[in-house]
Amino acid sequence: MHAKQPVRSGRAKRLPRAVRERQIMDAAVDVFSRLGFHAASMDEISEVAGISKPMLYAYLGSKEELFATCIRREATRMMEAIANGVEAEEPPDVQLWSGLRAFFGFVGENRASWQVLHRQASSQGGPFARELADMRGRAISLVAALLVHSSDFADVPRAGDKEAESLAAALVGAGESLADWWLDNPDEPAVVVAARLMNLVWMGFGDLVAGDVWRPPSGRG
Amino acid sequence: MHAKQPVRSGRAKRLPRAVRERQIMDAAVDVFSRLGFHAASMDEISEVAGISKPMLYAYLGSKEELFATCIRREATRMMEAIANGVEAEEPPDVQLWSGLRAFFGFVGENRASWQVLHRQASSQGGPFARELADMRGRAISLVAALLVHSSDFADVPRAGDKEAESLAAALVGAGESLADWWLDNPDEPAVVVAARLMNLVWMGFGDLVAGDVWRPPSGRG
Repeated sequence: MHAKQPVRSGRAKRLPRAVRERQIMDAAVDVFSRLGFHAASMDEISEVAGISKPMLYAYLGSKEELFATCIRREATRMMEAIANGVEAEEPPDVQLWSGLRAFFGFVGENRASWQVLHRQASSQGGPFARELADMRGRAISLVAALLVHSSDFADVPRAGDKEAESLAAALVGAGESLADWWLDNPDEPAVVVAARLMNLVWMGFGDLVAGDVWRPPSGRG
Repeated sequence: MHAKQPVRSGRAKRLPRAVRERQIMDAAVDVFSRLGFHAASMDEISEVAGISKPMLYAYLGSKEELFATCIRREATRMMEAIANGVEAEEPPDVQLWSGLRAFFGFVGENRASWQVLHRQASSQGGPFARELADMRGRAISLVAALLVHSSDFADVPRAGDKEAESLAAALVGAGESLADWWLDNPDEPAVVVAARLMNLVWMGFGDLVAGDVWRPPSGRG
């Protein structure tokens, strides 16, 4: 959980602010995901982070502010992981597959982040629900841009903005809901869950009930 | 909003309890969807329902209890509308199409219900988030049963429980997210929004970027 630290002599004050903040947020995401927002205490977070409670408040404010900051950071990390996973030169199906693998890979490797992002934030409501809605909006814009780009690539009529945005909303909702299901069924490998959504949204049920499935180009599994 | 009432002479006490409760809940859904949970007052709900405030508390309890009851009722109405819209003898694609039309038809005709069910409940968190999670669980079970039935119909290997459940979770999430998008884009007709999701999940992006779309059998539009 903790970032590697440079020389640490005696009191823990010498770390650069950015490193210190990262440590605190790592600790906070860990504690929030294990205990839930209400049961999580600033005492426990400061202990896990190895920092005094006054310092904790000085760096990142109240528990509510800290939680909102965690949601924003985890959302940004996830969005970066997806954007980095997709290469604009690839054909649309490979782009979609890369994006889904990046998404489920991130969720699988950062279950604590996803707990905080999705379950904790949505069960708290209020300002956190707004953070979550904001994250969903960014994800939908990202996916809509990919879809418009894909229709350019495939040389079919460019999808209208509304159409691309609504399909992106459906796709983001599908991914979110499937990742939530996965939290309760953690024994399924990331690649299996990603492949199911890929088949659903690329091939569609029509092909699936006929027994046709999508397979990644060889060497790209 | 109000149910038709039988003879109403003077004081409003003579109505059967079920009718009275329906009136109150109609009023509550209306007020919650317009004002949001926090701003909605029991005063306003009792006024819209045409009932005294003590009677309102006597029938349906506190504002929290009333809100939870509204969520449960609206979720049940929606689930019934979908189940009634689908006929088990139809081919799988027509079943899916009927289900999607029933869902988006319900949302379109009951925007207040959907506001309460989805936006209000999820922005409040706490016990309401649990009601919502429970509703999602029921919707996922319903869709999973349809999917398993479809694979029987199509005479392909029966989908495993986990597979059907995870695909159902994806589909429910897609519908939910698209309906939420629709709240902000209410100018699109229900049938257009339903057809978009039908094409996404039946045909898949693979066919869509190739220009192939799903069309309802003639006479079933």
